[in-house]
Amino acid sequence: MSLDLADAEDFGAGTAQPSSTASAHVTLAERTRELIDAVALTDVPEAELAAVAAEVAALTERLNAIRFDGPRPFELAPDGTFRHLVNAVTGEYNPHALPLVVEPDPAGGVRADLCFRAVHEGPPSYVHGGVSAMILDHLLGQAAAMAGFRGVTGTLSIRYVRPVPLGRPVVGRAAVTRSEGRKTWVDGGIALPDGTPLVEATGLFIVPSAWKTGE
Amino acid sequence: MSLDLADAEDFGAGTAQPSSTASAHVTLAERTRELIDAVALTDVPEAELAAVAAEVAALTERLNAIRFDGPRPFELAPDGTFRHLVNAVTGEYNPHALPLVVEPDPAGGVRADLCFRAVHEGPPSYVHGGVSAMILDHLLGQAAAMAGFRGVTGTLSIRYVRPVPLGRPVVGRAAVTRSEGRKTWVDGGIALPDGTPLVEATGLFIVPSAWKTGE
Repeated sequence: MSLDLADAEDFGAGTAQPSSTASAHVTLAERTRELIDAVALTDVPEAELAAVAAEVAALTERLNAIRFDGPRPFELAPDGTFRHLVNAVTGEYNPHALPLVVEPDPAGGVRADLCFRAVHEGPPSYVHGGVSAMILDHLLGQAAAMAGFRGVTGTLSIRYVRPVPLGRPVVGRAAVTRSEGRKTWVDGGIALPDGTPLVEATGLFIVPSAWKTGE
Repeated sequence: MSLDLADAEDFGAGTAQPSSTASAHVTLAERTRELIDAVALTDVPEAELAAVAAEVAALTERLNAIRFDGPRPFELAPDGTFRHLVNAVTGEYNPHALPLVVEPDPAGGVRADLCFRAVHEGPPSYVHGGVSAMILDHLLGQAAAMAGFRGVTGTLSIRYVRPVPLGRPVVGRAAVTRSEGRKTWVDGGIALPDGTPLVEATGLFIVPSAWKTGE
């Protein structure tokens, strides 16, 4: 689901897009995330805000010279899996994405190092509860997928235990707890590095009945 | 919670920031959202990606010339309420925010017109389940707040009924169903304009015991 530069190298070989182009997309998205942060926090005078807005519009025009009309197509990786480069949460081409980078957890399940930014704020100096929910939805789904259980989110229950700080490292974790027929249950959460729980989540992932055919 | 231009007019009178500056911030955030979309969908050649990335970095520098070091402070409106101009979900100064605009629903509770973009994608051509969860967390909290029940999200349960389409108008709604002491329950969801339910949510909002003093 996530593209790192090493993957991009392998990946480029099997597709029309060379790895250096993939890398340029990743860099552009990263520079744009920095711009998003600057836009949210800037206090420059009005005339400068307007001048920068005009320059931003000009850059948008340049990028729109050649672009996909609808959503960007998923790309097929050499291992036969699909990569979603503009996924809202993990997409490395997508400035909206953190991006979340999910890894196998040596303790079982999956983990992700997280550090939320000022643009993720809800209550003063804390992460918006909805942003935590967004990340957990993805993390729990990835735990199911990486354990070999496909499916879509059926239900997601979030329990907010303590506020999640902005700008400090926190850790996301998730692991499958049970699977039965088309249903898989996953537990996960966001915690401080010392393990203090901040947000806890349980998800139920379901393979839609239409998928049974041909699987 | 949300700033529209009419509010900005009133608002400027009571603060150091004139309404025209507020309006310039809103415009810059809007232009940046268009850039985010273009970055995610562009297919221009590698050299152009790199050239635009360099220009984006230069604009970030200009905005960073004067900026808040930490999160942007909340601003006090003339009616004594706080406005959070960079809230992750509603912040009109925040390019990460949709922004969600919440209104009182004539049928009771609150409503919001929504139209998700390509950068909100999860499954091919549908909205990421985490993005729906993020929006519902905020909408349910607003329903509690607008009904006069303060509090923070205790638990949030989401049920995914049908995938939410990208680029098509959908409607978010939420209303308080019950309140008991420090606890308030809210139901809500995202639906097609004809009422077909896509995602359903229930939230429990709790006034932290520390807030009891002085209230």
